[in-house]
Order: sequence, then C-alpha cells, then structure tokens
Amino acid sequence: MSFARGRRTKNAMIYLDNAATTRPDGGCLEQAKQYILENYYNPSALYAEGYNLHLLLKRARENMLSLIADDCFSLVFTSCGTEADNHALFCGGRRGNVVTTLGEHSAVFSAANELKQRGIEMRFAQLNPDGSVDIDKLISLVDSKTSLVSVIHVNNETGAINPVNDIADRVKAVNANTLFHSDGVQAFGKIPFRLGKNIDLYSISAHKIGGMKGCGALIKRKKLALKPFIYGGGQEEGLRSGTENVFGIKMFELAAMKKYSDIRKNHAHVQSLNEQLWNALDKDLFDRISPENGSPYILTVSARGVRGETILHEADDAGLIIGTGSACSSNEKKRYSRVILACGIAEENADGILRLSFSTENTAEEVAEAAKILNKVVKNRREIMS
Amino acid sequence: MSFARGRRTKNAMIYLDNAATTRPDGGCLEQAKQYILENYYNPSALYAEGYNLHLLLKRARENMLSLIADDCFSLVFTSCGTEADNHALFCGGRRGNVVTTLGEHSAVFSAANELKQRGIEMRFAQLNPDGSVDIDKLISLVDSKTSLVSVIHVNNETGAINPVNDIADRVKAVNANTLFHSDGVQAFGKIPFRLGKNIDLYSISAHKIGGMKGCGALIKRKKLALKPFIYGGGQEEGLRSGTENVFGIKMFELAAMKKYSDIRKNHAHVQSLNEQLWNALDKDLFDRISPENGSPYILTVSARGVRGETILHEADDAGLIIGTGSACSSNEKKRYSRVILACGIAEENADGILRLSFSTENTAEEVAEAAKILNKVVKNRREIMS
Repeated sequence: MSFARGRRTKNAMIYLDNAATTRPDGGCLEQAKQYILENYYNPSALYAEGYNLHLLLKRARENMLSLIADDCFSLVFTSCGTEADNHALFCGGRRGNVVTTLGEHSAVFSAANELKQRGIEMRFAQLNPDGSVDIDKLISLVDSKTSLVSVIHVNNETGAINPVNDIADRVKAVNANTLFHSDGVQAFGKIPFRLGKNIDLYSISAHKIGGMKGCGALIKRKKLALKPFIYGGGQEEGLRSGTENVFGIKMFELAAMKKYSDIRKNHAHVQSLNEQLWNALDKDLFDRISPENGSPYILTVSARGVRGETILHEADDAGLIIGTGSACSSNEKKRYSRVILACGIAEENADGILRLSFSTENTAEEVAEAAKILNKVVKNRREIMS
Repeated sequence: MSFARGRRTKNAMIYLDNAATTRPDGGCLEQAKQYILENYYNPSALYAEGYNLHLLLKRARENMLSLIADDCFSLVFTSCGTEADNHALFCGGRRGNVVTTLGEHSAVFSAANELKQRGIEMRFAQLNPDGSVDIDKLISLVDSKTSLVSVIHVNNETGAINPVNDIADRVKAVNANTLFHSDGVQAFGKIPFRLGKNIDLYSISAHKIGGMKGCGALIKRKKLALKPFIYGGGQEEGLRSGTENVFGIKMFELAAMKKYSDIRKNHAHVQSLNEQLWNALDKDLFDRISPENGSPYILTVSARGVRGETILHEADDAGLIIGTGSACSSNEKKRYSRVILACGIAEENADGILRLSFSTENTAEEVAEAAKILNKVVKNRREIMS
C-alpha cells in the first residue's frame, strides 16, 4: 500500500482553491510518515525515543524560524492558524483598546468581536477598494491606550498585501508599548518577507503550503511575556499545552523548508499562471477585484450579476474546483462576503465573486482549461438570464 | 513506499507506555490515508468535494457519539484532550466556585489554577490512597455557588476509576445547576461505560487509542449553551473554529469504532497482561500503587527508594519502554508527581514510581520479558546502592 505520490488521483479535476487548503506535499509526506507508525512516541517522555522527538521539535522550530525571522523570535506550534490568531488576540489584547481592520480573516475578526464582549474597545480600520487597509486611517485609531494592533499580511479574499513591517513601524511610533500582530497565513511560504523589528506576533498555518490540516504556529518575540492560551502539561514553553502533533509538525517544517528553498521561482511561476488566467478571462464577463501588485497566489474576480455559488457548482461539474471568497466564511451563512463589501463593492457584484487561488503544482495547461470553463459557464448563465 | 502495517519497526523494543501515547493503528491508517493526498479538500468549501467531507465529519461525530452516549449529546472535535479540558473549564466554570480533585491531569489542574487567577474560587477534593477521589469530601465542597465540577474518569497516574456517573448524580442532587465535566481521556475506548444523565461534558483523545496526536473531542449535552473556545470561521457548530483536521478525525473515528467493537475482549486481554505482569514482579522490589479494581490498562508500582528515572533509562537500554507517572507532568520539572503525593505516598517511594501501561497490541511474551527486565534492573540498582 502506498501514497499516490505526486499524482492526482482525480486526474480530471483542476484545483484552483489553494487558498482554502492545499494538497499535502507527497515528497514531504514520504519523509514525515515515519513519525506515524515508527517514531510515534510522546515527546515529553523521558526515555531516549521520546527525548529524540523533543529534540526533533526543537530543530523544527529553529528551522522554521530561520526562514523568516532573526534570533529575537521563538515559535509556538498550535493546532491551526485560527488558534494562533486567537492566542495573539486574547492574550495580546487584554486592556484598553485593540485596533484591527475590516479585512481580517474570521479567525481575527470573530476573536475581535468576542474581545468587545469582554469589555475591550474594538476599532476597525477601513479598506481600500483592493482589500488592503487604509493605513492612515488605521494609524489614526492608535493611541496611548492601544494594547494590540492586528493587520492581516495578505488579504485572504483579494490577495492584497499589507506592508506589515512598515505599518508596525508607524504603530510603534505612535505607541511603543502597543503589540503588533499579523495573520501571515496566506503570506508564509509564498511572499518573500522577513519579520521586521516592530512585529511582535505572527500567525502561520501548515495546510496552506502543502502541510497537514491541524497544525499552525504563532511566532512571537522572545522578550514578550505572553500568557498561555491552552493550559496543561507545559508543552511549547508552557504557552500551548497538549501532546505535540509530531507528524503534523514535521510535515509543516518540511513543507516550509521546501517552499522557501524555491520561494522566488515559485512566486514567478504562480505570477505567470495568475497573469495567464486573467488574460484569458473574457473581460465582458469578469471584473478584476484583486490588485495588480497583490499576492499572485490569489486572483479574485467578479462575474457581475451571476451568483458565485452557481458558477462554482457548474465549474465543478466541468472539472474545475474554485472558491467563492473565504471557505471559512461559508459557515457564517451570509450571502455576501463582509470583506468584499468592505472593499466598497456593490452587492450586485459581491454576489458573483470567485476566488481563484494557485499552488506551485498548478500548470499553464490547467489554467488555460480553467479559463475556458469559466468563460463558458458564465456566458451560458448570462444567456439564460437574459 | 508503504506503511509498515502491523509490524514494529524497532522489533526489539517492548512498549509499555501506552498511557502516554499509543502507536497509531495500522489498519485504521490504511483506511484513513485517502484523506491526506486524495480527499484533501476544505470541508467548509461549497463544491461537492468539500461538502462530501463535511458530511463525512458529521457521520464521524454521530458514529463516535453512538459508542458512549444517547441522542442528548453532541460532539465537538478539538486538537487534543487538553484543549477539550480547557474548553470545559474555561467556558463551564465562569462564576462562583469550581470543584475538582487533586488527582486531575495537568490539562484540568493547570486550567483550574488559571481559573483561580481569574477570580474563580477553586476547591480541590482529596484523594484516596489509590488515586480515586474521596467522593464524600468532593460532595461536601459543592454548594449553591458551584458552577462546575470536574472529576477525572480514570486517573492517568494510577488507573483508579472514579464512578463519574454516580458522582454526577450526587453533585446534581446538591445543585442541579452545576455543570459536571469529566476528563475521559484514559477511559474512552477502554472502559465499558456510557454517559449518564447528569454528565454535561466529557473529554476524549485520539492518540491514546490508536489514533493520531493532534485530535480530541469534547462531548457536550446538546441543550447546554457553551461559549466557544476558539473563534473564527464557525466550524464545529461555532464552538471550535479552524479548518477541520479531516485525516486526524477520520483516524479517531476508525480507531474508536475498532476499540469499541472489541471493548470487552480487549479489556479481558489487557486485564490478563496486567495480572501477569504484577504476578511476575518481585514483591521484595516492588509495591503496588494501582488499585486491584482500576483500569487494567495502567499498572503503577513503586520500586521503593530507587529513582524511577534511573530504572526507566536502564529498562530502555534493555529493550523496554515504560513511563514514570504522567508524560505531561515531565514538563513541570518537579521531582515528585503531585498526584502520587496526593495519594499519600511518602516521598521516598514517590521517587521510584513506574507507570506500566498497556495496549491491546501487547502480548504475554512481551509482558514476561518486561517483568524479567524490571526485576533485574531494580535488583542491580539495589545491590549497587547497598
């Protein structure tokens, strides 16, 4: 019995919803699978087999940190990006006011609303039309009582990039005691970037870069005394208790190392897929929502007036898997994406939002076929409607 | 490339630290591995491939609940037993006082200490010498202001079983509004048991029964309005956001179904291993800590005066992997287990505590060899010391 390494089992399907989750990397899996049935011990155990896994986790933290941070940071493995975001918000935003944006992933946005329930004053900065935050407005919300500012690095619905190092510098210039957090889930492993001197907390996730679901991390400045989010056996320097998910962590490390070893080549490849797809889409049918200078991994378009969900299902039948905004917001059961509306997009266009998101596994042939399917599906729908 | 199904890679090693973590079940893995590279989609996605995983998770919840609960319960998948315990304590114990025991796993005990920091009055019931809670003392701590009582089902250091259904009945007789939680991590899949009408919350973990690390669940009474622990995309009925760990959940479901299909046979097999091991241990060298009527999956002994850690390392060199109390408490960096001391055991004996814990994979041959190794190691140490 073996893993179908490097081969898609459903050959016919083109997968362009990589911002929702990526297919785990087959090569990394071959290396990590020994941590399922062979090295299955508890890393907190005192015997050599357990202690070796403890050392393995230590090296994984160091290896991952080396990819985007200097020695001033440490890394806490979590169960997902959402947990990392919650840890940052609930343990970082404990007093005064907290400033964030209307463009946050629900992991930050819902936690922010809960902070409000707990008596923290929440302040939300508005967005530019492409989904990036209006930085001047954000800075105007920061004052002497701001305990935390949280700004998403790459907007998960439009791909807009917020210059979080620069924003952090400006926040600290207003209030040096304010903590700065960024949700880096759609940036890590994709956008060349290193954590600047004014970022305190940064969230990342494994399953967006070829790792497994069920694993993420919160990168934190070492000198920052953060409260634990999960209490118990004292794992992860006491900040995140619970038996460590060794296999998931090893997959995360391997996937991250692989992505970073080729980050510029991958970026260029995906940029070319993104441009190819946009060029091939019929401009009579589609408007572009994503900025030109955003993350190439996300291309968000509006199929004016045609429901995104209808297109999604018809594309699926035709062999193309795409998203309509954030997968995570599908549980909110709201017709329109709050982030898309916050970009100032009219409801009639917000209805037809499609998020096309790439991985390095995608090919030019797939993108050509995807464009054909999308043009055909939307054109047919328009004709039926008219 | 394949998984080493059913075969131990390190053939020489006898693994008797199954209460710390078990080897994932090879048969379950063969069934679940399709959820790594093939069905890797996001269960919140709207297309058929995602929605099918949403349905798969729904069935997994139903299947698992059917094993120990009636229709009045629902199940929230978490990242581990520790998270489930934290969810129960932090969201169940929000006012008045909270009653628990001195025999709790650190996932409850540390959370209880944090609740105290947050202004909740904490009351800890004392233990009997075998590690079970003194029920009369526990009940005497419950009053009209008790918001939550939490009692571990099977003590993870001694194997003592607390009759949590009966205890819950007595708690509710004192205060019908008090929530009752039990940490069932060492009981689920091992001890025949169904949740009684007065249990509100019950924590379980996958990696103690042949599932993967990184997956657990909180079983909750449906009518109970519990606050979320992790906020975000609204997964798990809004109580635990974060992209669902489909592979880990499927492994959990399969392992649980397998354990329960043979639960009495497994219990008898492990009971016989437990008795065989105790009978074969030299009574001049070892005292028994575990009760006779406890979980057969755990046999805790004291090698009077010889350091447990020394025995552990020498046994490891001889091919036997065992524990010294809870793996999770090794991070506490305290010489003596707080649970063992709470049993009333003198420090000189608390030093030589060994936890020998079984899985259904263990054999009579392994146990015979384990007894030989333990007798030899401790006898040698005694001779060196005298």
